[in-house]
Amino acid sequence: MSAALVRRLRPAVFVASRPWSPRAPRIEPSSAAASERLYSGRMESRAPLFRQLFEAESSTYTYLLADAESRDAVLIDPVLETVDRDLKLLSELGLTLKVALNTHCHADHITGSGLLKKKLFGLKSAISKHSGAAADIQLSDGDRVHFGKLYVTVRETPGHTDGCVTYVTEDERMAFTGDALLIRGCGRTDFQQGSPLRLYESVHKKIFSLPGHCFIYPAHDYKGQTVSTVDEEKKFNPRLTKTLDEFVNIMNNLNLPKPKKIDISVPANLVCGLHDL
Amino acid sequence: MSAALVRRLRPAVFVASRPWSPRAPRIEPSSAAASERLYSGRMESRAPLFRQLFEAESSTYTYLLADAESRDAVLIDPVLETVDRDLKLLSELGLTLKVALNTHCHADHITGSGLLKKKLFGLKSAISKHSGAAADIQLSDGDRVHFGKLYVTVRETPGHTDGCVTYVTEDERMAFTGDALLIRGCGRTDFQQGSPLRLYESVHKKIFSLPGHCFIYPAHDYKGQTVSTVDEEKKFNPRLTKTLDEFVNIMNNLNLPKPKKIDISVPANLVCGLHDL
Repeated sequence: MSAALVRRLRPAVFVASRPWSPRAPRIEPSSAAASERLYSGRMESRAPLFRQLFEAESSTYTYLLADAESRDAVLIDPVLETVDRDLKLLSELGLTLKVALNTHCHADHITGSGLLKKKLFGLKSAISKHSGAAADIQLSDGDRVHFGKLYVTVRETPGHTDGCVTYVTEDERMAFTGDALLIRGCGRTDFQQGSPLRLYESVHKKIFSLPGHCFIYPAHDYKGQTVSTVDEEKKFNPRLTKTLDEFVNIMNNLNLPKPKKIDISVPANLVCGLHDL
Repeated sequence: MSAALVRRLRPAVFVASRPWSPRAPRIEPSSAAASERLYSGRMESRAPLFRQLFEAESSTYTYLLADAESRDAVLIDPVLETVDRDLKLLSELGLTLKVALNTHCHADHITGSGLLKKKLFGLKSAISKHSGAAADIQLSDGDRVHFGKLYVTVRETPGHTDGCVTYVTEDERMAFTGDALLIRGCGRTDFQQGSPLRLYESVHKKIFSLPGHCFIYPAHDYKGQTVSTVDEEKKFNPRLTKTLDEFVNIMNNLNLPKPKKIDISVPANLVCGLHDL
């Protein structure tokens, strides 16, 4: 589908389709120092206004990104129970939420995107076209979701589910990896079309190809960690540093209990969290 | 006590005593945009390596700051239960922890500083001299705690307790406010030498005098918020935006239950968390 057609179909939200190809890692004078600086030291203002938010019951991270000048914003992985908190923050910061993005169809919590759409006129929801879930925008690999002058690029990273994506900022300094890559971990692959092989490939080809200093912001953490970097995960992730065979063996023997809310979350998330609202 | 004497007594850790005086707020072309950029856009590398960490039972934030070049680090408000997690992170990032700082003598959790000192030879603990708690370094207003070429400055911010301090980075872009100022809230003043009058004064004179874009990183949050800014709190904090009389009335009528772990936390924290280890 051409970019022009995408724009015609969805004039209120600019999502441009471009073929994705791996970019050569940006060479920085001191990559380790650059990756670890909270402040990037760049003079140009292409970095988004950013807030990381947490929902304790499901240990989910929601991410708010905005263009500080136009005040347009996107919200990644909003949770139903924290919609009021998020609306209050958007209002206080004077932001206009344009798109509620999901990294995938979650099994552990009900997305807040449906309720947000009821409360915010003009808000669009977006999810991967491979998720099977209803949303205003069905995203493909390489799509860019614009907010003001900024955007995030979609990288399809299936394996935990078919419809998992990672959102990457324009400057490739922040990657919102959903459940594909977690801090020193990764999403499980024993339900929802999970595949260890696909997940391994997704992480290595689509996430580990990002610059080493790129921050990794996952959808969950259970140990109180908030962020990692590509370099850290390439060195210290106990699963993704293994060979493919070892990884498959680990993932096939996790023996985890099913998520507590899977039976209500998945059906709700297939309809944008509007089930039973 | 002169700076030279401080150095002689504690040669391994450089804490310099300087009289604190309020600095004129840095004028930025677009203060709101600057405050909201995660990345500051500065070319000089005076920003620390930074990690925000969370302990779920007490909803405590621990903060790791390091000089990315020398690899010297400090840890603010470590929690006993998450010491192993923090040690692992320090090791993975190749950091040498120089000082375990507490913002005050906590009532809701046991500090990890004592256990960290047992595990890391040469590590010093630090807390306000007004806290009544034992620590290697007794901090005063205006002291600077150095790690590599970076430092944080101590600002005494009593009111929640006598010994509350706020740690401010050299560039005044990050303030670790402990329980003095929380996101859209503040610490209670009904025990541990609490005083609404002192707290109001502390926040207005010592924290709200920081640049509007300065990030506020509190010791706790109970709604999944991770950070705020001075500007946001000056506009939206429901308590500190009131008059002094209104604030005192609010604080004297909170009617909160006592913290669950106060009876074990305070005695332990008075001895650097070493009680019953």
